[in-house]
Amino acid sequence: MLVSALLTSVGINFGLCVLFFILYSILRKQPSNYEVYIPRLVADGSSKRRSHFNLERLIPSPGWVKRAWNVTEDDLLSASGLDVVVFMRVITFSLKVFLFTAIIGIFVLLPINFTGGELSEIDLEDLSSYSLDVFTISNVKSGSKWLWAHFCAVYLVTAFVCILLYNEYKYICLKRIAYFHSSKPQPHQFTVLVRSVPVSSGSSVGESVERFFTEYHPSTYLSQMVVHRTNKLRSLINDAKKLYKRIIHLQSDPNKQKNTRIGLFGQKVDLMDQFEKKLEDIEENVRLEQSEVSMAEEVRAAFVSFKTRYGAAIAFHMQQSTNPTQWVIEQAPEPKDVYWPFFSSSFMRRWISKLVVIVACILLTILFLIPVVLVQGLTNLSQLEIWFPFLKSFLTITFVSSVVTGYLPSLILLLFLKIVPPIMEFLSSIQGYICHSDIEKSACNKVLWFTIWNIFFATVFSGSVLYQVSILLDPKNIPSKLAVAVPAQASFFVAYVVTSGWTSTASELFRIIPLFCSLIRRPFSKDTDDDFEVPSIPFHRDIPRILFFALLGITYFFLAPLILPFLLIYLCLAYVIFRNQFINVYAPRYETAGKFWPIVHNSMIFSLVLMQAIAVGIFTLKKLSVASTLIFPLVVLTLLFNEYCRKRFLPNFIAYPAEVLIKRDREDQNDRTMGEFYDKLVTAYQDPAMLPIHFSDNGESLNSPLISSTV
Amino acid sequence: MLVSALLTSVGINFGLCVLFFILYSILRKQPSNYEVYIPRLVADGSSKRRSHFNLERLIPSPGWVKRAWNVTEDDLLSASGLDVVVFMRVITFSLKVFLFTAIIGIFVLLPINFTGGELSEIDLEDLSSYSLDVFTISNVKSGSKWLWAHFCAVYLVTAFVCILLYNEYKYICLKRIAYFHSSKPQPHQFTVLVRSVPVSSGSSVGESVERFFTEYHPSTYLSQMVVHRTNKLRSLINDAKKLYKRIIHLQSDPNKQKNTRIGLFGQKVDLMDQFEKKLEDIEENVRLEQSEVSMAEEVRAAFVSFKTRYGAAIAFHMQQSTNPTQWVIEQAPEPKDVYWPFFSSSFMRRWISKLVVIVACILLTILFLIPVVLVQGLTNLSQLEIWFPFLKSFLTITFVSSVVTGYLPSLILLLFLKIVPPIMEFLSSIQGYICHSDIEKSACNKVLWFTIWNIFFATVFSGSVLYQVSILLDPKNIPSKLAVAVPAQASFFVAYVVTSGWTSTASELFRIIPLFCSLIRRPFSKDTDDDFEVPSIPFHRDIPRILFFALLGITYFFLAPLILPFLLIYLCLAYVIFRNQFINVYAPRYETAGKFWPIVHNSMIFSLVLMQAIAVGIFTLKKLSVASTLIFPLVVLTLLFNEYCRKRFLPNFIAYPAEVLIKRDREDQNDRTMGEFYDKLVTAYQDPAMLPIHFSDNGESLNSPLISSTV
Repeated sequence: MLVSALLTSVGINFGLCVLFFILYSILRKQPSNYEVYIPRLVADGSSKRRSHFNLERLIPSPGWVKRAWNVTEDDLLSASGLDVVVFMRVITFSLKVFLFTAIIGIFVLLPINFTGGELSEIDLEDLSSYSLDVFTISNVKSGSKWLWAHFCAVYLVTAFVCILLYNEYKYICLKRIAYFHSSKPQPHQFTVLVRSVPVSSGSSVGESVERFFTEYHPSTYLSQMVVHRTNKLRSLINDAKKLYKRIIHLQSDPNKQKNTRIGLFGQKVDLMDQFEKKLEDIEENVRLEQSEVSMAEEVRAAFVSFKTRYGAAIAFHMQQSTNPTQWVIEQAPEPKDVYWPFFSSSFMRRWISKLVVIVACILLTILFLIPVVLVQGLTNLSQLEIWFPFLKSFLTITFVSSVVTGYLPSLILLLFLKIVPPIMEFLSSIQGYICHSDIEKSACNKVLWFTIWNIFFATVFSGSVLYQVSILLDPKNIPSKLAVAVPAQASFFVAYVVTSGWTSTASELFRIIPLFCSLIRRPFSKDTDDDFEVPSIPFHRDIPRILFFALLGITYFFLAPLILPFLLIYLCLAYVIFRNQFINVYAPRYETAGKFWPIVHNSMIFSLVLMQAIAVGIFTLKKLSVASTLIFPLVVLTLLFNEYCRKRFLPNFIAYPAEVLIKRDREDQNDRTMGEFYDKLVTAYQDPAMLPIHFSDNGESLNSPLISSTV
Repeated sequence: MLVSALLTSVGINFGLCVLFFILYSILRKQPSNYEVYIPRLVADGSSKRRSHFNLERLIPSPGWVKRAWNVTEDDLLSASGLDVVVFMRVITFSLKVFLFTAIIGIFVLLPINFTGGELSEIDLEDLSSYSLDVFTISNVKSGSKWLWAHFCAVYLVTAFVCILLYNEYKYICLKRIAYFHSSKPQPHQFTVLVRSVPVSSGSSVGESVERFFTEYHPSTYLSQMVVHRTNKLRSLINDAKKLYKRIIHLQSDPNKQKNTRIGLFGQKVDLMDQFEKKLEDIEENVRLEQSEVSMAEEVRAAFVSFKTRYGAAIAFHMQQSTNPTQWVIEQAPEPKDVYWPFFSSSFMRRWISKLVVIVACILLTILFLIPVVLVQGLTNLSQLEIWFPFLKSFLTITFVSSVVTGYLPSLILLLFLKIVPPIMEFLSSIQGYICHSDIEKSACNKVLWFTIWNIFFATVFSGSVLYQVSILLDPKNIPSKLAVAVPAQASFFVAYVVTSGWTSTASELFRIIPLFCSLIRRPFSKDTDDDFEVPSIPFHRDIPRILFFALLGITYFFLAPLILPFLLIYLCLAYVIFRNQFINVYAPRYETAGKFWPIVHNSMIFSLVLMQAIAVGIFTLKKLSVASTLIFPLVVLTLLFNEYCRKRFLPNFIAYPAEVLIKRDREDQNDRTMGEFYDKLVTAYQDPAMLPIHFSDNGESLNSPLISSTV
């Protein structure tokens, strides 16, 4: 790719970003768009709809940038919880890393590369006709002493990233403990989920659970709540809900209220009466079904609550039964976080579904390579001309070819990638996780590895799956193959950062899809305030994206330092935009208290090791074998560092230590409100579908249990 | 190797075995050898030395075989503990497996191989001049339909072994629980070892531990015992012990008792007085040192005892502190099992020493290849003649060449292998384990993998380390390389089973080294009954050997079924001989209650997967690619089976479940002797070097604390 193609891509995306910013500044002030751009404030009631018109509404203003900038971490913590703080720290962490690497990369490595003289003579007159390769390490002559600068940079950056990683892990770990200390007593702290409950004939699951825990945890056991299979019930309740909404709609519309319809045989039917009768029927059905379900369809799983957090932790940590596949205990999620559908209980079934999901992920990866390979064809214009000869005249126009090679490939890739997070979330959901947070965490991992594999490796080795697998099966030659292939794709990834990074972040601000949905829906539904839900951020979509850009930055910083300024711009954009979105748009759906950080840490370590492997290959290729040998200790040290961090910090992210739990429990002992809390705790894990419903009597119960039943 | 060479090897070893058996039958009846052959009975006092001579003592008798045969598993359990039962079950398990495979191998596969006709025409006249290869799969023609018999055999044997493995794991798991239920209260059940105790300035380790556990485990905490660094003290006590023995020796010998010596300046010195004075000095030193050590040289580790087993288990399972590298808790070993030297406490130091040991193991493996490669040269006579031309005339003698190719290589290998278990034990001991059982368990693993790598792979690929590593780095081609190399070494391994297996087991019975030691020591020390210790079986020497033979059997059963009868003979020998040794010779030094079984299980699974990998390669080589594809599901199923077993059984081998612990604790609540037990528990983990000593006053305290201080 030429510099001119890159500049075209930068130009287009810069234009798009500015456009999005201006549109956002205007559109967010329109009351009709409040649901799209400030749903959180609307839900809090802090922003009322103003119907009066003024000119100010049509002038773009950058005030929101300042507001987003001024938010402190403590504000974020109290408003959106620790997960959001961790998310923002991923961005600031990357910013720190790439500021440091950019200083080294731009001021030391880039001049060395540019004056390397391997590729062609330098002509400062017409920079734009250069291939981007003159800025990469490919331009340094083999065996050049200047390569030691790259070698030092690899060591320096690894050390810097490791020190930052250590501090960050420590900081988040302390935050997590502090968050726990400052939190009020919450049901999930006192509760565990028991699965694979063995049931003797003639007794129910509830009785078994009750007997077991009163026997073995007599001093701390409080109560149990057996899980029921409520899929059918849930769909019935949904029907009732829809019908109820239609009735409310009819009632509120004076024109339609007395509307009647001519029946099939000519008699007049009052729609209102008909609907109400139907609703009553459904409610009757729901009640019948509820009593049936509570009698029969018990799942062999139960939420068991304890009097103390420590009691629950002991039950969680100890193997209960001599058969470890029975009485399997895990920490309970927050009640609102529970994922009621697909509630599988048997050990074997969950194990098998996990295996099936793994196979499905592999299949998905293979199928996904097809579009990736096609996209890669685009960057190679001459091949495109061979495939589609009739395009030849069209493609010779400079601007068109710039767009096609510089912009189109990453745009297509981007669109295809949009569908991956929902697919991965679905796969995780059938894997047997019990809460949304676990599902998203697992999906986050899946999306991350999928992205690394399908974008990074597939682009680099741009070949068939079999070719990629054959490379992995030949680990000895991985560095040399990487060394050849990775620098060759530098220009593609620079363009990818600009297209995917900049534009996707700007469109995150602009919220295109919710905006369109809102525009389409608006004519059909008026005044349906109660219908809209405050969205939550899909961590499994955004964290892998940032991590992938970090991987690109770390692996390419010494190969093609030109990527760094673009990455920094991306990170700055992300910093401002996501802070803005957390204030205005996203409300937290659950709180894992920072459990996403280990994923970030692992990804960073992987990036470092990958970078080092490439360095080994590059130095061998450039005939500086001493340097490539000297990289090996760095790989070992990085892996040892990771192992140390795993031992030092990871346990705190799985469960809280005894010390902390006991301190918290002692504080509660003197608290008089605990009695009240215990009363709530007993029913906290009631399946929302099992709660009594009543719509038909009065219209006021809409915001009651039903909202939670849609979770 | 020709059949004649194999027959020579079998002949020699059969002769040796018979010789050992006869010698054993005679020697064990000589009272002077009681310490070598029935030390256990002597120590129990059930076998007194008879000094009167009778002729019966010189006639070999097979009575001991019958006695060994008649011992039941319960007898073994009560006499030697669960570890020995597990050890015997490894042998019976292998016997079952190889009886089954022998039926398939000898009656189905061997005839198919022999009539395969690939190698040469069959001449039934002179079987002994055949190469052993006619009995291997190499003799089956490529693409032959008969190969499906081998394919079915692979499936059948895998299924059979997996079913057996499952049942065995389950059986031993139940035995382990039953053993725990039937055991008396023992100190290690109530105790944990805490390491990396953080100490605030101005307080001792003991105070820190006391404060922490009274704070966080107030209801169950009983006592603590801080560990001291006593290496210097131990050597002082050993000096005292030696001196004391000399005094006892002088006292008991009436001739020497009044012996005096002429001093340097002519004055007469009473030796007895001199020694006693010296002993008093040392004792004084020991007392001084003890008080010093107890004041100063505290290790940041302590044994912490609890009032209940469940209390100790909770402390073990829960992470105590927010920093997981502090207050590191592990289960305490039995008091007699504690390994007091090298008592490292810091988290970092243990971690680093572990890494150092790993590197040392790798170095050892590389150095060890040198003798292995030399040995392999011997099997190739023509190469030997090139190396040592002067041996040419000597090597042409048929018998000599048979011995050299058939017997010598495995004998040399055997001698080299003798030194591996002690080296591995030493490496494990500096790795930071706190008890002999853990050290031996770790050494067992090390020896096993060392054997598999250095005997199996080094023989098969008989090349340099770099060549072997390069094969591992090219995993795609492992099956095809194995398929070429493994059948070629069939004859070597058949000979290896005969030499190493038969003879080493027979020499285990004969106990050559202890016998020689006893013969050499006898003239110097008379009547030193109290000096001898009942030996314990080195599991890390014998378990890997049996497992390696099982690996050979499983991998070669379909390649060269001829190995199976020899293996069965070996296993029968081992069965009788080890039972005999457990009754007469070995006393248990510790009790892990079957924790060695997971090693056995993993090794068997590895053998199965290795066999399947070879099968894939063989079927590809023999142009039966459908079969080689159809083996893949079997590999996946085997690995899944292993994963299931890990989840189903392994947790019970790490710690006992809550259910079992609580039941046991409740039984104790009504036991009146518990008060007494708690009193003992408080001092159970006192370092023997810290106990008061007094030799000089009276001579009767020899069997007191000193014996344990040599542990």
